[in-house]
Amino acid sequence: MTYCCGVLVREGLVMVADTRTNAGLDNISTFRKLHVFSKPGDRILAVASAGNLSISQSVLSTLTEGLENAETGERETLISASSMFQAAQLIGRAIRHVNATEAQALKAEDINYEVSFLFGGQIRGERMRLFMIYPAGNFIECTIDTPYLQIGEHKYGKPVLDRAITFDVELYEALKTSLISMDSTMRSNLGVGLPIDVLVVRTDVCDADLNHRIEAGEPYFHDLRSRWSAALRAAHKNIPRPPYKDQA
Amino acid sequence: MTYCCGVLVREGLVMVADTRTNAGLDNISTFRKLHVFSKPGDRILAVASAGNLSISQSVLSTLTEGLENAETGERETLISASSMFQAAQLIGRAIRHVNATEAQALKAEDINYEVSFLFGGQIRGERMRLFMIYPAGNFIECTIDTPYLQIGEHKYGKPVLDRAITFDVELYEALKTSLISMDSTMRSNLGVGLPIDVLVVRTDVCDADLNHRIEAGEPYFHDLRSRWSAALRAAHKNIPRPPYKDQA
Repeated sequence: MTYCCGVLVREGLVMVADTRTNAGLDNISTFRKLHVFSKPGDRILAVASAGNLSISQSVLSTLTEGLENAETGERETLISASSMFQAAQLIGRAIRHVNATEAQALKAEDINYEVSFLFGGQIRGERMRLFMIYPAGNFIECTIDTPYLQIGEHKYGKPVLDRAITFDVELYEALKTSLISMDSTMRSNLGVGLPIDVLVVRTDVCDADLNHRIEAGEPYFHDLRSRWSAALRAAHKNIPRPPYKDQA
Repeated sequence: MTYCCGVLVREGLVMVADTRTNAGLDNISTFRKLHVFSKPGDRILAVASAGNLSISQSVLSTLTEGLENAETGERETLISASSMFQAAQLIGRAIRHVNATEAQALKAEDINYEVSFLFGGQIRGERMRLFMIYPAGNFIECTIDTPYLQIGEHKYGKPVLDRAITFDVELYEALKTSLISMDSTMRSNLGVGLPIDVLVVRTDVCDADLNHRIEAGEPYFHDLRSRWSAALRAAHKNIPRPPYKDQA
Protein backbone atom coordinates (compact mmCIF):
# COMPACT_ATOMS: atom_id res chain seq x y z
CA MET A 1 0.00 0.00 0.00
CA THR A 2 1.01 3.64 -0.32
CA TYR A 3 -0.06 7.06 0.76
CA CYS A 4 1.15 10.20 -0.99
CA CYS A 5 -0.36 13.64 -0.87
CA GLY A 6 0.44 16.91 -2.55
CA VAL A 7 -0.74 20.31 -1.38
CA LEU A 8 -0.55 23.40 -3.56
CA VAL A 9 -0.87 26.69 -1.69
CA ARG A 10 -0.14 30.29 -2.60
CA GLU A 11 3.34 30.09 -1.07
CA GLY A 12 4.31 26.85 -2.74
CA LEU A 13 4.04 23.08 -2.93
CA VAL A 14 4.25 20.30 -0.34
CA MET A 15 4.54 16.63 -1.23
CA VAL A 16 4.76 13.78 1.25
CA ALA A 17 5.02 10.06 0.55
CA ASP A 18 5.48 6.99 2.68
CA THR A 19 7.97 4.28 1.68
CA ARG A 20 6.29 1.01 2.55
CA THR A 21 5.69 -1.55 -0.17
CA ASN A 22 4.27 -5.00 0.16
CA ALA A 23 4.02 -7.97 -2.13
CA GLY A 24 1.57 -9.75 0.13
CA LEU A 25 1.45 -9.15 3.86
CA ASP A 26 4.46 -11.41 4.37
CA ASN A 27 6.76 -9.41 2.14
CA ILE A 28 7.14 -5.82 3.30
CA SER A 29 9.95 -3.54 2.17
CA THR A 30 11.02 0.09 2.03
CA PHE A 31 11.18 1.81 -1.36
CA ARG A 32 11.34 5.51 -2.15
CA LYS A 33 8.15 6.68 -3.83
CA LEU A 34 8.87 10.41 -3.97
CA HIS A 35 11.38 11.29 -6.69
CA VAL A 36 12.74 14.77 -7.26
CA PHE A 37 14.21 16.00 -10.55
CA SER A 38 15.77 19.44 -10.40
CA LYS A 39 17.95 22.01 -12.13
CA PRO A 40 18.09 24.53 -9.29
CA GLY A 41 16.82 27.93 -10.38
CA ASP A 42 15.40 26.54 -13.62
CA ARG A 43 13.00 23.81 -12.59
CA ILE A 44 12.04 21.39 -9.88
CA LEU A 45 9.76 18.47 -10.68
CA ALA A 46 8.60 15.81 -8.24
CA VAL A 47 6.89 12.52 -8.95
CA ALA A 48 5.21 10.39 -6.27
CA SER A 49 3.96 6.95 -7.23
CA ALA A 50 1.37 4.43 -6.05
CA GLY A 51 0.39 1.03 -7.36
CA ASN A 52 2.41 -1.79 -8.88
CA LEU A 53 6.07 -1.13 -8.02
CA SER A 54 7.58 -2.82 -11.09
CA ILE A 55 5.40 -0.69 -13.36
CA SER A 56 5.97 2.58 -11.48
CA GLN A 57 9.75 2.03 -11.43
CA SER A 58 9.73 1.28 -15.16
CA VAL A 59 7.72 4.45 -15.79
CA LEU A 60 10.31 6.45 -13.81
CA SER A 61 13.20 4.85 -15.69
CA THR A 62 11.41 5.68 -18.94
CA LEU A 63 11.00 9.29 -17.83
CA THR A 64 14.73 9.43 -17.10
CA GLU A 65 16.00 7.59 -20.21
CA GLY A 66 13.48 9.34 -22.42
CA LEU A 67 10.57 8.32 -24.61
CA GLU A 68 10.40 8.97 -28.32
CA ASN A 69 7.69 11.38 -29.36
CA ALA A 70 6.02 9.78 -32.37
CA GLU A 71 5.10 13.20 -33.84
CA THR A 72 8.43 14.98 -33.52
CA GLY A 73 10.77 11.97 -33.46
CA GLU A 74 12.49 13.55 -30.43
CA ARG A 75 13.46 11.67 -27.31
CA GLU A 76 11.70 13.40 -24.38
CA THR A 77 12.72 13.21 -20.74
CA LEU A 78 11.05 14.69 -17.71
CA ILE A 79 13.91 17.04 -16.99
CA SER A 80 13.83 18.42 -20.54
CA ALA A 81 10.05 18.89 -20.80
CA SER A 82 9.19 22.37 -22.01
CA SER A 83 6.19 22.87 -19.70
CA MET A 84 4.55 21.24 -16.70
CA PHE A 85 1.58 20.32 -18.89
CA GLN A 86 3.82 18.60 -21.43
CA ALA A 87 5.67 16.85 -18.60
CA ALA A 88 2.33 15.53 -17.27
CA GLN A 89 1.46 14.33 -20.78
CA LEU A 90 4.85 12.64 -20.97
CA ILE A 91 4.18 10.75 -17.73
CA GLY A 92 0.83 9.64 -19.15
CA ARG A 93 2.55 8.43 -22.33
CA ALA A 94 5.22 6.65 -20.29
CA ILE A 95 2.50 4.78 -18.34
CA ARG A 96 0.84 3.67 -21.60
CA HIS A 97 4.23 2.76 -23.09
CA VAL A 98 5.15 0.53 -20.13
CA ASN A 99 1.65 -0.97 -19.99
CA ALA A 100 1.88 -1.85 -23.69
CA THR A 101 4.73 -4.25 -22.97
CA GLU A 102 3.95 -5.32 -19.36
CA ALA A 103 0.21 -5.17 -18.69
CA GLN A 104 -0.90 -8.22 -20.66
CA ALA A 105 1.38 -10.65 -18.83
CA LEU A 106 0.39 -9.25 -15.43
CA LYS A 107 -3.29 -9.36 -16.33
CA ALA A 108 -2.87 -13.02 -17.29
CA GLU A 109 -1.51 -13.69 -13.78
CA ASP A 110 -4.36 -11.68 -12.25
CA ILE A 111 -1.87 -9.15 -10.84
CA ASN A 112 -2.94 -5.53 -10.54
CA TYR A 113 -0.68 -3.52 -12.84
CA GLU A 114 -2.27 -0.13 -12.23
CA VAL A 115 -0.16 2.82 -11.18
CA SER A 116 -0.98 6.42 -10.39
CA PHE A 117 1.23 9.43 -9.85
CA LEU A 118 1.26 12.82 -8.26
CA PHE A 119 3.34 15.19 -10.31
CA GLY A 120 4.15 18.65 -9.02
CA GLY A 121 6.64 21.43 -9.38
CA GLN A 122 7.55 24.53 -11.29
CA ILE A 123 9.44 25.40 -14.45
CA ARG A 124 10.83 28.96 -14.54
CA GLY A 125 8.39 31.29 -16.29
CA GLU A 126 5.38 29.12 -15.45
CA ARG A 127 3.29 28.90 -12.32
CA MET A 128 3.69 26.09 -9.79
CA ARG A 129 1.37 23.19 -10.76
CA LEU A 130 0.27 19.88 -9.29
CA PHE A 131 -1.26 16.98 -11.24
CA MET A 132 -2.66 13.55 -10.50
CA ILE A 133 -2.04 11.04 -13.29
CA TYR A 134 -4.42 8.10 -13.47
CA PRO A 135 -3.61 4.50 -14.44
CA ALA A 136 -4.80 5.13 -18.01
CA GLY A 137 -2.38 8.04 -18.37
CA ASN A 138 -5.04 10.78 -18.26
CA PHE A 139 -4.69 13.38 -15.55
CA ILE A 140 -6.31 16.17 -13.57
CA GLU A 141 -4.79 19.33 -12.18
CA CYS A 142 -5.07 20.71 -8.68
CA THR A 143 -6.95 24.01 -8.43
CA ILE A 144 -7.48 26.68 -5.79
CA ASP A 145 -10.88 25.28 -4.75
CA THR A 146 -9.45 21.98 -3.53
CA PRO A 147 -5.73 22.61 -3.25
CA TYR A 148 -4.62 19.06 -2.59
CA LEU A 149 -4.45 15.70 -4.37
CA GLN A 150 -3.86 12.22 -3.00
CA ILE A 151 -2.91 8.80 -4.36
CA GLY A 152 -2.95 5.36 -2.76
CA GLU A 153 -4.74 4.88 0.55
CA HIS A 154 -6.40 8.29 0.47
CA LYS A 155 -9.48 8.00 2.67
CA TYR A 156 -8.09 7.89 6.22
CA GLY A 157 -6.07 11.04 5.71
CA LYS A 158 -8.67 13.02 3.77
CA PRO A 159 -10.84 14.41 6.60
CA VAL A 160 -7.95 16.38 8.12
CA LEU A 161 -7.05 17.84 4.72
CA ASP A 162 -10.69 18.74 4.06
CA ARG A 163 -10.86 20.62 7.34
CA ALA A 164 -7.50 22.38 7.40
CA ILE A 165 -6.22 23.01 3.90
CA THR A 166 -7.06 26.11 1.90
CA PHE A 167 -5.03 27.84 -0.77
CA ASP A 168 -4.01 30.56 1.72
CA VAL A 169 -2.59 28.25 4.38
CA GLU A 170 1.10 28.97 5.06
CA LEU A 171 3.58 26.59 3.45
CA TYR A 172 4.88 24.86 6.58
CA GLU A 173 1.36 24.74 8.04
CA ALA A 174 0.46 22.80 4.90
CA LEU A 175 3.38 20.46 5.61
CA LYS A 176 2.18 20.03 9.19
CA THR A 177 -1.33 19.16 8.01
CA SER A 178 0.08 16.73 5.45
CA LEU A 179 2.02 14.99 8.22
CA ILE A 180 -1.12 14.75 10.39
CA SER A 181 -2.90 13.28 7.37
CA MET A 182 -0.04 10.79 6.99
CA ASP A 183 -0.27 9.93 10.69
CA SER A 184 -4.02 9.18 10.43
CA THR A 185 -3.35 6.94 7.44
CA MET A 186 -0.49 5.10 9.15
CA ARG A 187 -2.62 4.49 12.23
CA SER A 188 -5.39 2.81 10.24
CA ASN A 189 -3.45 1.04 7.49
CA LEU A 190 -0.35 -0.97 8.34
CA GLY A 191 0.54 -0.97 4.65
CA VAL A 192 1.54 2.68 5.00
CA GLY A 193 4.66 3.32 7.09
CA LEU A 194 7.82 5.21 7.95
CA PRO A 195 10.17 6.54 6.73
CA ILE A 196 8.25 9.47 5.18
CA ASP A 197 9.77 11.51 2.36
CA VAL A 198 8.93 15.19 2.35
CA LEU A 199 9.42 17.87 -0.27
CA VAL A 200 8.66 21.57 0.19
CA VAL A 201 9.08 24.01 -2.70
CA ARG A 202 8.55 27.78 -2.46
CA THR A 203 6.79 29.49 -5.34
CA ASP A 204 9.17 31.01 -7.91
CA VAL A 205 12.34 29.59 -6.37
CA CYS A 206 12.55 26.52 -8.64
CA ASP A 207 14.50 24.61 -6.02
CA ALA A 208 13.68 22.55 -2.92
CA ASP A 209 13.16 24.49 0.28
CA LEU A 210 13.15 21.13 2.05
CA ASN A 211 13.93 17.65 0.75
CA HIS A 212 13.90 15.50 3.83
CA ARG A 213 13.33 11.94 5.02
CA ILE A 214 11.54 11.47 8.33
CA GLU A 215 12.91 8.27 9.88
CA ALA A 216 11.25 6.17 12.59
CA GLY A 217 11.84 7.73 16.01
CA GLU A 218 12.47 11.21 14.61
CA PRO A 219 11.56 13.56 17.49
CA TYR A 220 9.35 16.15 15.73
CA PHE A 221 7.14 13.63 13.95
CA HIS A 222 6.93 11.52 17.10
CA ASP A 223 5.87 14.61 19.03
CA LEU A 224 3.34 15.59 16.36
CA ARG A 225 1.78 12.14 16.59
CA SER A 226 1.47 12.21 20.39
CA ARG A 227 0.20 15.80 20.46
CA TRP A 228 -2.40 15.05 17.83
CA SER A 229 -3.55 11.95 19.72
CA ALA A 230 -3.73 13.84 23.01
CA ALA A 231 -5.55 16.76 21.40
CA LEU A 232 -8.10 14.44 19.79
CA ARG A 233 -8.70 12.73 23.12
CA ALA A 234 -9.18 16.11 24.78
CA ALA A 235 -11.43 17.37 21.96
CA HIS A 236 -13.49 14.24 22.30
CA LYS A 237 -13.74 14.58 26.08
CA ASN A 238 -14.88 18.21 25.83
CA ILE A 239 -17.92 17.41 23.72
CA PRO A 240 -20.95 16.92 25.97
CA ARG A 241 -22.64 13.53 26.15
CA PRO A 242 -25.69 13.01 23.90
CA PRO A 243 -28.80 14.26 25.73
CA TYR A 244 -31.19 11.95 23.88
CA LYS A 245 -34.02 10.18 25.64
CA ASP A 246 -35.73 7.18 24.14
CA GLN A 247 -38.66 8.24 22.01
CA ALA A 248 -39.69 4.77 20.90
CA MET B 1 -23.59 4.88 -0.18
CA THR B 2 -24.03 4.02 3.49
CA TYR B 3 -22.23 4.22 6.77
CA CYS B 4 -23.24 2.11 9.76
CA CYS B 5 -21.19 1.31 12.80
CA GLY B 6 -21.76 -0.83 15.84
CA VAL B 7 -19.85 -0.54 19.11
CA LEU B 8 -19.93 -3.23 21.77
CA VAL B 9 -18.75 -2.10 25.19
CA ARG B 10 -19.02 -3.56 28.68
CA GLU B 11 -22.14 -1.50 29.41
CA GLY B 12 -23.92 -2.36 26.19
CA LEU B 13 -24.32 -1.83 22.47
CA VAL B 14 -24.49 1.25 20.24
CA MET B 15 -25.54 1.14 16.60
CA VAL B 16 -25.74 4.15 14.28
CA ALA B 17 -26.72 4.23 10.63
CA ASP B 18 -27.26 6.96 8.08
CA THR B 19 -30.29 6.92 5.79
CA ARG B 20 -29.03 8.14 2.44
CA THR B 21 -29.40 5.91 -0.59
CA ASN B 22 -28.52 6.67 -4.15
CA ALA B 23 -29.18 5.01 -7.47
CA GLY B 24 -26.65 7.15 -9.26
CA LEU B 25 -25.72 10.63 -8.08
CA ASP B 26 -28.90 12.03 -9.62
CA ASN B 27 -31.25 9.85 -7.60
CA ILE B 28 -30.82 10.32 -3.87
CA SER B 29 -33.38 9.22 -1.30
CA THR B 30 -33.87 8.55 2.39
CA PHE B 31 -34.39 4.95 3.52
CA ARG B 32 -34.10 3.49 7.00
CA LYS B 33 -31.12 1.13 7.25
CA LEU B 34 -31.25 0.39 10.98
CA HIS B 35 -34.05 -2.03 11.88
CA VAL B 36 -34.90 -3.04 15.41
CA PHE B 37 -36.74 -6.24 16.36
CA SER B 38 -37.66 -6.51 20.01
CA LYS B 39 -39.67 -8.35 22.64
CA PRO B 40 -38.87 -6.07 25.58
CA GLY B 41 -37.28 -7.97 28.44
CA ASP B 42 -36.77 -11.08 26.31
CA ARG B 43 -34.69 -9.93 23.35
CA ILE B 44 -33.65 -6.97 21.26
CA LEU B 45 -32.07 -7.55 17.86
CA ALA B 46 -30.92 -4.85 15.47
CA VAL B 47 -29.93 -5.15 11.83
CA ALA B 48 -28.14 -2.42 9.87
CA SER B 49 -27.66 -2.86 6.15
CA ALA B 50 -25.34 -1.65 3.40
CA GLY B 51 -25.21 -2.41 -0.29
CA ASN B 52 -27.91 -3.02 -2.88
CA LEU B 53 -31.17 -1.73 -1.38
CA SER B 54 -33.49 -4.14 -3.21
CA ILE B 55 -31.46 -7.09 -1.94
CA SER B 56 -31.12 -5.83 1.64
CA GLN B 57 -34.84 -5.08 1.84
CA SER B 58 -35.67 -8.55 0.50
CA VAL B 59 -33.34 -10.08 3.08
CA LEU B 60 -35.13 -8.15 5.83
CA SER B 61 -38.55 -9.21 4.55
CA THR B 62 -37.30 -12.80 4.46
CA LEU B 63 -36.11 -12.50 8.06
CA THR B 64 -39.56 -11.23 9.05
CA GLU B 65 -41.65 -13.67 7.00
CA GLY B 66 -39.37 -16.58 7.84
CA LEU B 67 -37.12 -18.95 5.94
CA GLU B 68 -37.55 -22.69 5.94
CA ASN B 69 -34.71 -24.58 7.59
CA ALA B 70 -33.90 -27.46 5.22
CA GLU B 71 -32.74 -29.69 8.11
CA THR B 72 -35.63 -29.22 10.53
CA GLY B 73 -38.37 -28.21 8.10
CA GLU B 74 -39.20 -25.32 10.45
CA ARG B 75 -39.87 -21.76 9.34
CA GLU B 76 -37.34 -19.53 11.11
CA THR B 77 -37.66 -15.81 11.73
CA LEU B 78 -35.22 -13.42 13.31
CA ILE B 79 -37.50 -12.74 16.26
CA SER B 80 -37.87 -16.45 17.02
CA ALA B 81 -34.19 -17.39 16.69
CA SER B 82 -33.00 -19.36 19.69
CA SER B 83 -29.59 -17.69 19.96
CA MET B 84 -27.69 -14.72 18.54
CA PHE B 85 -25.39 -17.12 16.72
CA GLN B 86 -28.33 -18.91 15.09
CA ALA B 87 -29.87 -15.54 14.21
CA ALA B 88 -26.60 -14.50 12.50
CA GLN B 89 -26.60 -17.80 10.60
CA LEU B 90 -30.21 -17.15 9.59
CA ILE B 91 -29.25 -13.75 8.16
CA GLY B 92 -26.46 -15.43 6.20
CA ARG B 93 -28.92 -18.01 4.86
CA ALA B 94 -31.40 -15.26 3.98
CA ILE B 95 -28.71 -13.44 1.96
CA ARG B 96 -27.91 -16.63 0.04
CA HIS B 97 -31.62 -17.36 -0.42
CA VAL B 98 -32.32 -13.93 -1.92
CA ASN B 99 -29.14 -14.04 -4.03
CA ALA B 100 -30.22 -17.42 -5.44
CA THR B 101 -33.23 -15.79 -7.07
CA GLU B 102 -31.96 -12.24 -7.70
CA ALA B 103 -28.19 -12.17 -8.18
CA GLN B 104 -28.01 -13.68 -11.66
CA ALA B 105 -30.25 -11.07 -13.25
CA LEU B 106 -28.41 -8.20 -11.54
CA LYS B 107 -25.04 -9.62 -12.53
CA ALA B 108 -26.24 -9.79 -16.13
CA GLU B 109 -27.00 -6.04 -15.94
CA ASP B 110 -23.61 -5.39 -14.29
CA ILE B 111 -25.33 -4.14 -11.14
CA ASN B 112 -23.65 -4.72 -7.81
CA TYR B 113 -25.95 -6.99 -5.79
CA GLU B 114 -23.74 -7.32 -2.73
CA VAL B 115 -25.10 -6.55 0.71
CA SER B 116 -23.57 -6.61 4.15
CA PHE B 117 -25.11 -6.32 7.58
CA LEU B 118 -24.29 -5.44 11.13
CA PHE B 119 -26.31 -7.56 13.49
CA GLY B 120 -26.29 -6.85 17.21
CA GLY B 121 -28.32 -7.36 20.32
CA GLN B 122 -29.05 -9.66 23.19
CA ILE B 123 -31.33 -12.58 23.89
CA ARG B 124 -32.12 -13.15 27.58
CA GLY B 125 -29.72 -15.68 29.08
CA GLU B 126 -26.98 -14.93 26.53
CA ARG B 127 -24.42 -12.16 26.41
CA MET B 128 -24.76 -9.12 24.17
CA ARG B 129 -23.20 -9.85 20.78
CA LEU B 130 -22.40 -7.96 17.60
CA PHE B 131 -21.75 -9.53 14.19
CA MET B 132 -20.81 -8.36 10.71
CA ILE B 133 -22.33 -10.47 7.95
CA TYR B 134 -20.53 -10.44 4.61
CA PRO B 135 -22.09 -10.56 1.12
CA ALA B 136 -21.51 -14.34 0.93
CA GLY B 137 -23.45 -14.88 4.16
CA ASN B 138 -20.42 -15.72 6.30
CA PHE B 139 -19.82 -13.54 9.34
CA ILE B 140 -17.41 -12.43 12.04
CA GLU B 141 -18.13 -11.45 15.62
CA CYS B 142 -16.95 -8.38 17.46
CA THR B 143 -14.55 -9.07 20.33
CA ILE B 144 -13.11 -7.11 23.24
CA ASP B 145 -9.86 -6.37 21.39
CA THR B 146 -11.55 -4.32 18.68
CA PRO B 147 -14.98 -3.58 20.05
CA TYR B 148 -16.52 -2.06 16.93
CA LEU B 149 -17.57 -3.12 13.44
CA GLN B 150 -18.45 -1.01 10.42
CA ILE B 151 -20.17 -1.52 7.07
CA GLY B 152 -20.38 0.69 3.99
CA GLU B 153 -18.09 3.71 3.71
CA HIS B 154 -15.95 2.71 6.68
CA LYS B 155 -12.61 4.42 6.16
CA TYR B 156 -13.29 8.09 6.90
CA GLY B 157 -14.85 7.29 10.26
CA LYS B 158 -12.37 4.63 11.36
CA PRO B 159 -9.50 6.76 12.75
CA VAL B 160 -11.70 8.30 15.45
CA LEU B 161 -12.98 4.86 16.50
CA ASP B 162 -9.43 3.48 16.54
CA ARG B 163 -8.35 6.25 18.86
CA ALA B 164 -11.29 6.51 21.22
CA ILE B 165 -13.10 3.19 21.52
CA THR B 166 -12.15 0.53 24.03
CA PHE B 167 -14.35 -2.08 25.67
CA ASP B 168 -14.43 -0.05 28.90
CA VAL B 169 -15.68 3.20 27.37
CA GLU B 170 -19.00 4.31 28.89
CA LEU B 171 -22.09 3.59 26.81
CA TYR B 172 -23.05 7.17 25.90
CA GLU B 173 -19.38 8.04 25.34
CA ALA B 174 -19.42 5.25 22.78
CA LEU B 175 -22.49 6.85 21.20
CA LYS B 176 -20.73 10.23 21.12
CA THR B 177 -17.69 8.68 19.41
CA SER B 178 -19.94 6.91 16.92
CA LEU B 179 -21.57 10.23 16.07
CA ILE B 180 -18.16 11.90 15.58
CA SER B 181 -17.24 8.97 13.33
CA MET B 182 -20.49 9.54 11.40
CA ASP B 183 -19.69 13.25 11.12
CA SER B 184 -16.23 12.56 9.64
CA THR B 185 -17.82 10.20 7.12
CA MET B 186 -20.55 12.67 6.16
CA ARG B 187 -17.99 15.44 5.65
CA SER B 188 -15.97 13.39 3.17
CA ASN B 189 -18.65 11.38 1.37
CA LEU B 190 -21.83 13.10 0.18
CA GLY B 191 -23.39 9.67 -0.25
CA VAL B 192 -23.71 9.43 3.54
CA GLY B 193 -26.22 11.81 5.09
CA LEU B 194 -28.81 12.77 7.66
CA PRO B 195 -31.10 11.71 9.23
CA ILE B 196 -29.07 9.35 11.42
CA ASP B 197 -30.73 6.45 13.24
CA VAL B 198 -29.34 5.59 16.64
CA LEU B 199 -29.88 2.60 18.91
CA VAL B 200 -28.45 2.21 22.40
CA VAL B 201 -29.01 -0.99 24.40
CA ARG B 202 -27.83 -1.58 27.96
CA THR B 203 -26.39 -4.97 28.80
CA ASP B 204 -28.92 -7.40 30.33
CA VAL B 205 -31.93 -5.13 29.82
CA CYS B 206 -33.05 -6.66 26.53
CA ASP B 207 -34.77 -3.47 25.49
CA ALA B 208 -33.73 -0.20 23.84
CA ASP B 209 -32.31 2.45 26.13
CA LEU B 210 -32.52 4.81 23.17
CA ASN B 211 -34.08 4.35 19.75
CA HIS B 212 -33.82 7.74 18.16
CA ARG B 213 -33.62 9.50 14.79
CA ILE B 214 -31.33 12.53 14.52
CA GLU B 215 -32.87 14.86 11.95
CA ALA B 216 -31.09 17.63 10.04
CA GLY B 217 -30.77 20.73 12.21
CA GLU B 218 -31.08 18.81 15.47
CA PRO B 219 -29.27 21.01 18.03
CA TYR B 220 -27.05 18.43 19.82
CA PHE B 221 -25.66 16.86 16.67
CA HIS B 222 -25.20 20.27 15.10
CA ASP B 223 -23.30 21.39 18.21
CA LEU B 224 -21.18 18.21 18.22
CA ARG B 225 -20.19 18.87 14.62
CA SER B 226 -19.17 22.48 15.26
CA ARG B 227 -17.35 21.66 18.49
CA TRP B 228 -15.44 18.85 16.84
CA SER B 229 -14.47 21.10 13.93
CA ALA B 230 -13.36 23.88 16.26
CA ALA B 231 -11.43 21.47 18.48
CA LEU B 232 -9.64 19.96 15.48
CA ARG B 233 -8.70 23.41 14.25
CA ALA B 234 -7.36 24.29 17.70
CA ALA B 235 -5.53 20.96 18.03
CA HIS B 236 -3.97 21.56 14.66
CA LYS B 237 -2.93 25.11 15.57
CA ASN B 238 -1.31 23.98 18.83
CA ILE B 239 1.11 21.60 17.12
CA PRO B 240 4.40 23.39 16.44
CA ARG B 241 5.55 23.93 12.86
CA PRO B 242 7.98 21.39 11.40
CA PRO B 243 11.55 22.41 12.32
CA TYR B 244 13.13 20.67 9.32
CA LYS B 245 15.92 22.28 7.36
CA ASP B 246 16.82 21.11 3.91
CA GLN B 247 19.41 18.35 4.06
CA ALA B 248 19.66 17.78 0.34
